[in-house]
Amino acid sequence: MATDAQGEAETADAYAELVERFERINGVQGAAGVLGWDQQVMMPEGGTPARSKQLSVLSSLGHELLTDDRTAELLDACEELDLDGERAAQLREMRREFERADAVPTGLVKEISEASTEALNAWERAREEDDFDRFAPHLETLVELKRDYAEHIDPDRDAYAVLFEDYEPYLPLSRAEEILETLKETLVPMIDEIRESDADVATDAFAGEFPTDEQEALSREVLTMLGYDWDRGRLDPSTHPFTSGNVYDCRVTTRYDESDPLGGLMATVHEFGHAFYNLGLPEEQFGTPLGESRDLSIHESQSRLWENHVGRSPAFWELVTPKFAERFDTDATPWEAYESANRVYENNLIRVEADELTYHLHIVIRFEIERALISGELDVEDVPEAWNDKYEEYLGIRPDTDTEGCLQDIHWSHGNFGYFPTYSLGSVLSSQLFNAAEDDIGDVYGTVRGGDFEPLQEWLRENVHRHGSRYETNELVREATGEDFTADYFVDYVRTKYGDLYDLKESV
Amino acid sequence: MATDAQGEAETADAYAELVERFERINGVQGAAGVLGWDQQVMMPEGGTPARSKQLSVLSSLGHELLTDDRTAELLDACEELDLDGERAAQLREMRREFERADAVPTGLVKEISEASTEALNAWERAREEDDFDRFAPHLETLVELKRDYAEHIDPDRDAYAVLFEDYEPYLPLSRAEEILETLKETLVPMIDEIRESDADVATDAFAGEFPTDEQEALSREVLTMLGYDWDRGRLDPSTHPFTSGNVYDCRVTTRYDESDPLGGLMATVHEFGHAFYNLGLPEEQFGTPLGESRDLSIHESQSRLWENHVGRSPAFWELVTPKFAERFDTDATPWEAYESANRVYENNLIRVEADELTYHLHIVIRFEIERALISGELDVEDVPEAWNDKYEEYLGIRPDTDTEGCLQDIHWSHGNFGYFPTYSLGSVLSSQLFNAAEDDIGDVYGTVRGGDFEPLQEWLRENVHRHGSRYETNELVREATGEDFTADYFVDYVRTKYGDLYDLKESV
Repeated sequence: MATDAQGEAETADAYAELVERFERINGVQGAAGVLGWDQQVMMPEGGTPARSKQLSVLSSLGHELLTDDRTAELLDACEELDLDGERAAQLREMRREFERADAVPTGLVKEISEASTEALNAWERAREEDDFDRFAPHLETLVELKRDYAEHIDPDRDAYAVLFEDYEPYLPLSRAEEILETLKETLVPMIDEIRESDADVATDAFAGEFPTDEQEALSREVLTMLGYDWDRGRLDPSTHPFTSGNVYDCRVTTRYDESDPLGGLMATVHEFGHAFYNLGLPEEQFGTPLGESRDLSIHESQSRLWENHVGRSPAFWELVTPKFAERFDTDATPWEAYESANRVYENNLIRVEADELTYHLHIVIRFEIERALISGELDVEDVPEAWNDKYEEYLGIRPDTDTEGCLQDIHWSHGNFGYFPTYSLGSVLSSQLFNAAEDDIGDVYGTVRGGDFEPLQEWLRENVHRHGSRYETNELVREATGEDFTADYFVDYVRTKYGDLYDLKESV
Repeated sequence: MATDAQGEAETADAYAELVERFERINGVQGAAGVLGWDQQVMMPEGGTPARSKQLSVLSSLGHELLTDDRTAELLDACEELDLDGERAAQLREMRREFERADAVPTGLVKEISEASTEALNAWERAREEDDFDRFAPHLETLVELKRDYAEHIDPDRDAYAVLFEDYEPYLPLSRAEEILETLKETLVPMIDEIRESDADVATDAFAGEFPTDEQEALSREVLTMLGYDWDRGRLDPSTHPFTSGNVYDCRVTTRYDESDPLGGLMATVHEFGHAFYNLGLPEEQFGTPLGESRDLSIHESQSRLWENHVGRSPAFWELVTPKFAERFDTDATPWEAYESANRVYENNLIRVEADELTYHLHIVIRFEIERALISGELDVEDVPEAWNDKYEEYLGIRPDTDTEGCLQDIHWSHGNFGYFPTYSLGSVLSSQLFNAAEDDIGDVYGTVRGGDFEPLQEWLRENVHRHGSRYETNELVREATGEDFTADYFVDYVRTKYGDLYDLKESV
């Protein structure tokens, strides 16, 4: 009996030690996060050598803490214990992080990191010179290294499915594929019909000159209106908008283009969605895996919900158009602003400049190409042609150069294969969540129109944010909406919205 | 023979491993430095809980790497090797860092850290309520803990001398004492005579309203003029000006007071001196102890040299007064600006607002009191009276409250005993260095007057900065000036300068 009691006490101690160990790892990762934010927002140009060294030290210290034998011992000791729901979830997340990191040899991680650095340089030069061949050998190396990486984690499964789990551990790739297939089937004919439509959709509400300082003031005003907590955040400019931080301090960045105030403002609203999620995570779990946000599609659902379902709604533009008129020389009506913010670009080749519909075909193309690359069905040298063919097939346009074709995104030079789908999954989920919020709250747009974002904020806090990583992805979706992750609500949403805007009849 | 060769190879490997280990420690400390800068300059208020955790994790990881058994083994292995000058110096610095950290139990370090946090809160309340008794028990605890700390490092030596080495490891306390004694003997009668002087020294060149944005623009202009490398630095506002960074990225902060443009500008020039030192450290030694700056008095000598010998010189004001006139509504002549920038405040109780002369008596008073506290000659409860008596004796003024008396500085609530003297030592050394630079360069003020700071910059780079921690403090002073660390040049400097300004006859 004494031995049993002692054993239990030891196991309880093991759990506490394990949590403490993960809190340390989180401290190291959080520090690296601050260094990353600083690097992109504040650091003077010359600071790179010191910063690279600091980040590399933090990365290896975090990895060592995670894959230490002691972590394995503690995890095993905790398996003995019959843990309750929350602690079981904590343990599930810890074990997953450990096993993922432990499976891959440090040497391979380093090799990938070094190959990425070289690939990034080559990608930049290839873009400048519109010369895919400069990038091709690096892409080849990264594809091989990432196959190797996947094989270390699970040699018996489809490599791409394994890579996808780095970003989306709890959503089967087959489910993601179905959703992307649905998007393609829905959107290709819709965009075709929009191309033929002679509906008179306003496109010029945001034409003119929009000084940067006024754009910044407007972004601040809109963030305040949406409920951004300035005591726990900041807004700064950066080349690529991003969000960084935790429940105590979560910062957003945006960009300003003097001839395009919409792009910057929508980026601000998008990043607000990411930050508002992090700022709603459970404080009492801060620093532990359970206190972290769920994975990328859930995170993107939060940014897209605010960007698309709020920021591109008529109600939003009723609120914001007068703010535009106060700061800029414009006389667009709210409805014209709404239409301009939702116009479909029929000839746009660039993903980050795409509208809400064509966007997903950019993603589908990347998904199909990277799957085929990893499986070996497609050779690296054939990527440009495959890319251009797919653009022609799905979007009816063909890039003239690789710079505005398959070289446009940075992701592959980071070795990120399996990341792109999460963008579309997040959009799809944002519709499902928004629909559930409407079911619970009633007239959400009525509250938005009145400048009252609290009902929506509270719904998201209660149904998504406060759970942290407590539930697996689909469980969380079920908790919030009562249904499995589905594309149905997104399809309904775009059919109704764009059917109305463009007088569509056939494709909706 | 084979064994010998093998042994040598192993020792060489040990040296390389040791350097790598210290580079890792430096990476962790550098990361903590970025987090500290961010906390004071950028972090939103609510970020404290996450930041404290991150900093505490980095601090303990750094400490563990430093005091790990492996560090000791490697250090011992390297002792076997007959290292050359530079590597011997590297080893000297590594061993010192290791032994210092290893001597003090982790529990005591944590106790001091926690006691400091509590003391800091109590100090803030005590200041608000002008109630020393609120702070006294915390000061008592910190004095005891720091005595204990010193005893762990060396039970056979004067505790204060041991504590002083945290900031100034290579300058004997006896030498510091002699210098502070010289300052007291020189300055007390000078300040007395200045009080009686009827010289007509301008005091109002900086009276008026000075908008913050123009002050900031002026600070940037002056930093550019002095040679600050903006590719490796930034200027931001903060409550207390400070410098943070390394040879690749060294940032300064300053403060702006709309009714006092001189304070902010002199802070900018002061911090420039600190940053210019770090930016001149040997790049090839980055991340190793040898690539670090020498200790606090050397660092302060750099800031004071730029602040006092450059920034408070007639030549500087000939350059800068026109810049003032361009931005602000002032018509002071360069000479009036010079006089106003050097006026001696006869009734100032606050160290950070002191002039170049009375400043050192503020330091002497703190030094005498903290020495007596650590030795036990003075009880904590008697600090206010001892403080006020000394102000009356040395400066002819007596504080009415403890808030503007012994509670004015934050240092003791951090447990920093032995730190204050380095401020005066740095000033003293700045005169010695400036004198040596003049000997080598010739008419330094002639070049400054012409806006050419290069000769002085190059002299400092060549004689101080590039050495990093290669030499012990007095060795470095000898390398740069050919003489031991002495107060003689400072005494000459203030006698000439203030003798002229205030028509002094007796005390000079």
